[in-house]
Amino acid sequence: MKVSANFIPTLREVPADAVIVSHRLMFRAGMLRKLANGLFAYLPLGLRSFRKVENIIREEMDAIGSLEIKPTVVVPGEIWKESGRWETMGEGLLRVKNRLGADFVVSPTAEEAFTSLVRDELSSYRQLPLSLYQINTKYRDEIRPRYGVMRGREFVMKDAYSFHTDDESLDETYRKMGSAYRRIFKRCGLTVIPVKADSGAMGGSGSEEFMVESEVGDNTLLLCKACDYAANVEKAGCKPDYTVPASIEEAKAAATSVPAIEKIDTPHVKTIEELCGFLKTDAKKFIKTLIYKAVNVELDLNTAPGCSKLERKSPSPGAPAVYPAAFFAVAIRGDLDVNEVKLAALLKAGEVTLAADTDVERFTGAPVGFAGPVGLNSIPVIADETITALNDAVTGALEKDKHYQHAAYGRDFTPWLTADVRIVKAGDRCSVCGGELYEKKGNELGHIFKLGYKYTKSMNVSYLDEDGKSRTPTMGCYGIGLDRTLASVIEEHHDDAGIIWPLTIAPYHVIIVPIKYEGAVKTAADDLAAALERFGVEVLLDDRNERPGVKFNDADLLGIPYRVVVGDKNLSLPQPSVEVKWRSEKENRLVDVSKAAEELAGLVCAELEKLNS
Amino acid sequence: MKVSANFIPTLREVPADAVIVSHRLMFRAGMLRKLANGLFAYLPLGLRSFRKVENIIREEMDAIGSLEIKPTVVVPGEIWKESGRWETMGEGLLRVKNRLGADFVVSPTAEEAFTSLVRDELSSYRQLPLSLYQINTKYRDEIRPRYGVMRGREFVMKDAYSFHTDDESLDETYRKMGSAYRRIFKRCGLTVIPVKADSGAMGGSGSEEFMVESEVGDNTLLLCKACDYAANVEKAGCKPDYTVPASIEEAKAAATSVPAIEKIDTPHVKTIEELCGFLKTDAKKFIKTLIYKAVNVELDLNTAPGCSKLERKSPSPGAPAVYPAAFFAVAIRGDLDVNEVKLAALLKAGEVTLAADTDVERFTGAPVGFAGPVGLNSIPVIADETITALNDAVTGALEKDKHYQHAAYGRDFTPWLTADVRIVKAGDRCSVCGGELYEKKGNELGHIFKLGYKYTKSMNVSYLDEDGKSRTPTMGCYGIGLDRTLASVIEEHHDDAGIIWPLTIAPYHVIIVPIKYEGAVKTAADDLAAALERFGVEVLLDDRNERPGVKFNDADLLGIPYRVVVGDKNLSLPQPSVEVKWRSEKENRLVDVSKAAEELAGLVCAELEKLNS
Repeated sequence: MKVSANFIPTLREVPADAVIVSHRLMFRAGMLRKLANGLFAYLPLGLRSFRKVENIIREEMDAIGSLEIKPTVVVPGEIWKESGRWETMGEGLLRVKNRLGADFVVSPTAEEAFTSLVRDELSSYRQLPLSLYQINTKYRDEIRPRYGVMRGREFVMKDAYSFHTDDESLDETYRKMGSAYRRIFKRCGLTVIPVKADSGAMGGSGSEEFMVESEVGDNTLLLCKACDYAANVEKAGCKPDYTVPASIEEAKAAATSVPAIEKIDTPHVKTIEELCGFLKTDAKKFIKTLIYKAVNVELDLNTAPGCSKLERKSPSPGAPAVYPAAFFAVAIRGDLDVNEVKLAALLKAGEVTLAADTDVERFTGAPVGFAGPVGLNSIPVIADETITALNDAVTGALEKDKHYQHAAYGRDFTPWLTADVRIVKAGDRCSVCGGELYEKKGNELGHIFKLGYKYTKSMNVSYLDEDGKSRTPTMGCYGIGLDRTLASVIEEHHDDAGIIWPLTIAPYHVIIVPIKYEGAVKTAADDLAAALERFGVEVLLDDRNERPGVKFNDADLLGIPYRVVVGDKNLSLPQPSVEVKWRSEKENRLVDVSKAAEELAGLVCAELEKLNS
Repeated sequence: MKVSANFIPTLREVPADAVIVSHRLMFRAGMLRKLANGLFAYLPLGLRSFRKVENIIREEMDAIGSLEIKPTVVVPGEIWKESGRWETMGEGLLRVKNRLGADFVVSPTAEEAFTSLVRDELSSYRQLPLSLYQINTKYRDEIRPRYGVMRGREFVMKDAYSFHTDDESLDETYRKMGSAYRRIFKRCGLTVIPVKADSGAMGGSGSEEFMVESEVGDNTLLLCKACDYAANVEKAGCKPDYTVPASIEEAKAAATSVPAIEKIDTPHVKTIEELCGFLKTDAKKFIKTLIYKAVNVELDLNTAPGCSKLERKSPSPGAPAVYPAAFFAVAIRGDLDVNEVKLAALLKAGEVTLAADTDVERFTGAPVGFAGPVGLNSIPVIADETITALNDAVTGALEKDKHYQHAAYGRDFTPWLTADVRIVKAGDRCSVCGGELYEKKGNELGHIFKLGYKYTKSMNVSYLDEDGKSRTPTMGCYGIGLDRTLASVIEEHHDDAGIIWPLTIAPYHVIIVPIKYEGAVKTAADDLAAALERFGVEVLLDDRNERPGVKFNDADLLGIPYRVVVGDKNLSLPQPSVEVKWRSEKENRLVDVSKAAEELAGLVCAELEKLNS
């Protein structure tokens, strides 16, 4: 393909809103243009690389027996109402009413569409397991789209959904997907960090995210310096730096030597820091207590203090019944913070937020700053696990300017629930090996997830088992963002001059740069291009009437892995030659022009094989 | 690929709403399922055939140098406002407001998106011609989607747009597209009828539609029994069955021997039929006059009778100024009907409809039934060309129960405009060769069209020519509907038992049917499948534990071109053999099992080559 016959509008200028390198380079290399905020058009060069990512994903999905289908992008709102997500998805879901007043959704994901399709076709256990995927357009109505295609509004996702008679079958497909994902990212030349939801000490896992490091990543990851532990901060645990009592009796026993609990005056002292100064002690001796409001709580609150009057309601027909709103006190060691994602997961809540001051006062009977677990009966108390090791602590006394000292877990208070709800931070210890954890920012490229019965139950999917009994299948879902994957390849492979494509994703394998496209140089360049193409090598021939410097800069910017310079001087050598350079290296070398095609084809094949193996 | 590892839910029942054969067979063969009215999911088998159509189109577009890009499916409403189509596209355009209140469109076509992209990148004549295409999801909010994917709401279209400095360059790309389209349909095994907008006598053409015959087609075509003339009834012309005078003077001269025009009483006579009976003459002697209302008329009405008070307005910023509404009288020979598409094209109007009775009375001064061109000055009179040959005609006298007889064109009345606005019908004569025309119903699969400056002007696209002058490029657009093309292949290739795929579009080339998938039969079937796959042949192996009859019926329903039956009996012959049958033939033949793979691979290659040549 000649450059003059292509459409590669390279730019020297960087678009003002392009803050990350992939965004800048995709624009500068003429791969991408903006149609509107968060909406981009791939130009020919960008689309070639995009299609290569797409093909790698398709090959690996096919290889594990997942079957490609193609539902629509615009889907009926009805199935989203069935699953309950019409209500719960928030404003990121692009809802459309058509001319007849019917509700539609521009799909952001397709659990509903696949589940509904399978529901209509599934009758017997013999049809399971079934693994289906699509590679299709998605839309999420991001409020602040940014970083180019890394967080656009419209994007392409490979999303697979699998259906199974039992957990073992789901496990097997889940494992195969995990291996396929590792191969996909390897073939794309990407270094990914696989992050298990509850890896390490907890054993098996129900979810794994595939992250790439990124300064502007949406996710904070915790990684171990000593082993390969990696976790999303939203879910990360750590090795306790305290001893957890085996039972509440053991906790009580350990507190026998502790002085009795005592209320003290702490005038004008509200924050942990102020208390530390006032009592000349350290935050690890405090029980911090925060009041949270949770919405759409699925957890059973039947036995929870202060909850007897709450009623469960179904937010939409078919959706599980939830408590629309409930309040909780969360007690945690004074030096730590509450992880709201863990808390929401514990409560199976739609969202948790700190309660308003008026709510705090209503439930604690005191102004903000004096909450504590001792004597708090108006709402359920949830204790972080760290609290169970505290038997001589300071905490709020539910009274203005008063705190307790010598408070002991098990003796002076018993929380309704105990769980891990702390935010794990750099410096904490790895739950697997005890090594030191450190933080990285990351972007999620892929996610595999055991959904279980969430959709198959709410959408009434069933099949008949060997005994003719009706059963509900269990389900997994598996996504990869194609645009993000492509952008991440550039994030990982570039230098100041431009992109450095891995050969598998490069729009072309070889760029031929004739010094001046005329006479013997033109003939040699054309012949070389034709010979390479006969070998199946993808060639871009820069036939433009531009100065060599301009062409070299563009070749570097486009990032084509091999550059071949054809010039009069080297063609006039006793052994007529061309200059070959690998994009990632500084040095070029002369290759006999009559052997150049074969040699390059060999290099291309070998490198492709290495990446694809 | 084994049938048991695939997902091919064949059906014996036909869905109730499936009235055409492709709809029925795509459902029965497990290719397609319905998500909602007009929204369909391709299942694995259907998607394989769909992708084959897609690849053929892509190869042929690439072969003529069109470059593939990928804009978004959801595009900003802003560019549709620029082109003026936000207002004029009607309710078929699916408009969406996002969470921030911005307007978007789920693209039904992409003139705006491509024009806006090119506008931003185009600077010099050196970049032209430029031909870009996409193969992407489209949405049209059909009120009555039907016939399966033949008229769905969401569909996939290949749409190309080309930009040029001059008409010669546009002509060249237009011709290349036309050839590519012929090749695409040939490779898909389709018989298409290319229909030029104004083919024949008129010379060059600005538009060509590629139609397939269909009982339920949206279009009526007129074809010549004697030559290859084909036209859409909307635009079809025919050879006159009358003599057109060379000038209005000649028409006047020819009327000298005709008696003077005379008003006669025609009590209670209104319709042409009643008049024919009353005057004992034939409808060809009458001038029928109809009053039309036209909206958004772009034609200049400066000199038109009764239009001096009309004002031009721009329906949206940037769109050309039009008369919001205007009325016209159309005079046509009594045996003919007015073609409203031709009339709208003549007036460059958004729409034309028959005027309300009150409007007819207002403009003609008489009740409905007495309109005529003689003395009608309140609105412009448009005469169909047939009228110019009438010099002794009967027509309405603009007065209740009165008609004129002996009315002569040129002597008694002079229309404002004369043009061809008749509906051509079966039995009329071909404008090229005079042969008899006949009618067919057809569906449009593709359309190539010289757009000219419509979008480049309204959206302000410009480039600098050789002399540094700013110029507007001219433009062409070229579409093919993929879903319709696939469905049309089935419409053309099927029998009572199922689909008969052309090899190029078949989901698999060969289906192997073991009589009982076990023992020696299983080994032979597996070996044959593996050998065929090594030759690059696509194989479906029916490993199900079903009766042979069920498997044979399904093989016929799926329409796989070659069927190989592997059974104990033939494997036990002195020359162990398998049965090979071509889907479209009744007879099968025995082939030596050791030579079956090579022979079949040879047949597959030869047939593919024939179709693709």
